[in-house]
Amino acid sequence: MPELRKDPIIGRWVIIATERGTRPHDFKRSPESLGGDPQNCPFCPGNESKTPPEILAYHEPGRLKDQPGWWIRVVPNKYPALQVEGAIHREGEGMYDKMSGLGAHEVIIETSSHTEFIAQMKPSRIEDVFWACRDRMIDLKKDPRMQYILIFKNHGAAAGASLAHPHSQLIATPMVPIRVKQEMAGAKAYYDYKERCVFCDILREESEDRRRVVAENEGFVAFEPYASRFPFETWIIPKIHSAHFEDVQKHQVVDLAQIMKKSLGQIHQVLQNPPLNYIVHTAPLKEMDLPHYHWHIEIMPKLTHVAGFEWGTGFYINPTPPELAAQFLTDMKGD
Amino acid sequence: MPELRKDPIIGRWVIIATERGTRPHDFKRSPESLGGDPQNCPFCPGNESKTPPEILAYHEPGRLKDQPGWWIRVVPNKYPALQVEGAIHREGEGMYDKMSGLGAHEVIIETSSHTEFIAQMKPSRIEDVFWACRDRMIDLKKDPRMQYILIFKNHGAAAGASLAHPHSQLIATPMVPIRVKQEMAGAKAYYDYKERCVFCDILREESEDRRRVVAENEGFVAFEPYASRFPFETWIIPKIHSAHFEDVQKHQVVDLAQIMKKSLGQIHQVLQNPPLNYIVHTAPLKEMDLPHYHWHIEIMPKLTHVAGFEWGTGFYINPTPPELAAQFLTDMKGD
Repeated sequence: MPELRKDPIIGRWVIIATERGTRPHDFKRSPESLGGDPQNCPFCPGNESKTPPEILAYHEPGRLKDQPGWWIRVVPNKYPALQVEGAIHREGEGMYDKMSGLGAHEVIIETSSHTEFIAQMKPSRIEDVFWACRDRMIDLKKDPRMQYILIFKNHGAAAGASLAHPHSQLIATPMVPIRVKQEMAGAKAYYDYKERCVFCDILREESEDRRRVVAENEGFVAFEPYASRFPFETWIIPKIHSAHFEDVQKHQVVDLAQIMKKSLGQIHQVLQNPPLNYIVHTAPLKEMDLPHYHWHIEIMPKLTHVAGFEWGTGFYINPTPPELAAQFLTDMKGD
Repeated sequence: MPELRKDPIIGRWVIIATERGTRPHDFKRSPESLGGDPQNCPFCPGNESKTPPEILAYHEPGRLKDQPGWWIRVVPNKYPALQVEGAIHREGEGMYDKMSGLGAHEVIIETSSHTEFIAQMKPSRIEDVFWACRDRMIDLKKDPRMQYILIFKNHGAAAGASLAHPHSQLIATPMVPIRVKQEMAGAKAYYDYKERCVFCDILREESEDRRRVVAENEGFVAFEPYASRFPFETWIIPKIHSAHFEDVQKHQVVDLAQIMKKSLGQIHQVLQNPPLNYIVHTAPLKEMDLPHYHWHIEIMPKLTHVAGFEWGTGFYINPTPPELAAQFLTDMKGD
């Protein structure tokens, strides 16, 4: 019989198919339609003029702005979902409410190579990706209009990427998004009841249980969450309690780069470079260091389609139990 | 500048690209991988033995159970997300909570034709699809363990369908799903403040404004919602206030079939048979006829990928303003 499992943070139920379970090779995927050639890629060196002027770059000494010689480059999104100019206008339209689409939308170009996925990069370069994200957060946090900063990656067409060249995105919003509010509220309710951080409790539980752990180092644990929504969903949680990603310590960034490389490498190998998203979950900018919230990263391979049932109910059907997914990932075998 | 619009029911913000807007022909889609041939289709007449025994059929007089001669057939899902046997067990697992996957999961085979999409069916046959859904709801409602019944359709591989033969699905769950709770809570909050049903207000607003209306008849209005999450998202709302789909009146079913045929026909033609989901939004089984809730149907074409930003924030980026989508749908032209 299938099993219903409840996410301890936001109370979301997931249906886990506990019988045989779908194996990595059972996921049929349409071939990736991305690619493009480096000649025309706006993120490749030599094509710097095809993006808006850069905001930040990590580069060789003496290199000029918007010229080659960089290994990380941050630029405004050419087709921004939100725009940074202007004030916040709120107004009604008939019975409805609207506001101006103010915010920031930036692209973190993670490497000068058109094809080097993050799992293939040198650890020190992965560290720099996270440093660049943090640098931008610290800068945008100074803008009093901004309430939240989301850092995320879309990898592969089915995960929403429109360019193949490895990149992450950053969006700063003038309100706290509803999902973030729900996660914060769930974590707060747990804390109010137990007087402990739910993420610290999960960390303890997974570290003892071990069945769902896929990687661990001094600073972080990577595991398949108990109520995984998606096959091979993987969370990476820092062992030190902290609400804000931007407060990450230098030695933690070394461990984070190492565990991201390992976890993404496992997924990349076992599932043969699947489309995926990952998202940095962090507290709203104007919150202090909350005792009930704990920043972390959620990786979601896109192997199944979200369909009518998920849209209608908000709970998910996951054909691969997380315990089975963890076995495949740690064996590094597709089946 | 993009515009943020707020859904008046659950308070979800949507980013609407108000500049040029993405036109129907701009949506690139990978070709549908479904199809299959009628010989091997478990839903085609002559293959009745390939499904579990039928629960209900609308058929010619004298026809035997699980034999051809039907035009609608309801069968248990062969790979059910939830199973109908057993009691509800709730238990802990370490710090987590789980329960048995009890419920019902049925398939409504809408036609004996392998390829006839609902928009191409005779209106009287579409009426019968809704009658069959209602018959099953009335029957399952007698089971005291069931709290909610979701009726939905996945059309096309990208919308989660695994078989091409036209069908809908019904899932009965032993709890009220989180999305339904959120929608009910939002509608209740509006009612508490305004002492009016939010859906009745939307109906009035759209009927006067007309810019987003795509079809209307005596019983229903079809329109693109003000804060559409997806390009060409279309809602169909009955003009008579009622919380429960299963209380639908006979004359309403005639109008519902007519407006579904028209709305799905518009979408089918303008977007060239896109993958889509539709979902019947109805009140939980054990609620009375609530003054604040109003059943309706939401149609969601799948033209864009839900990506990291949507997952991380819960708000959506919609590149096609609903006013523009309504123009395309009512002109019945792709561009």
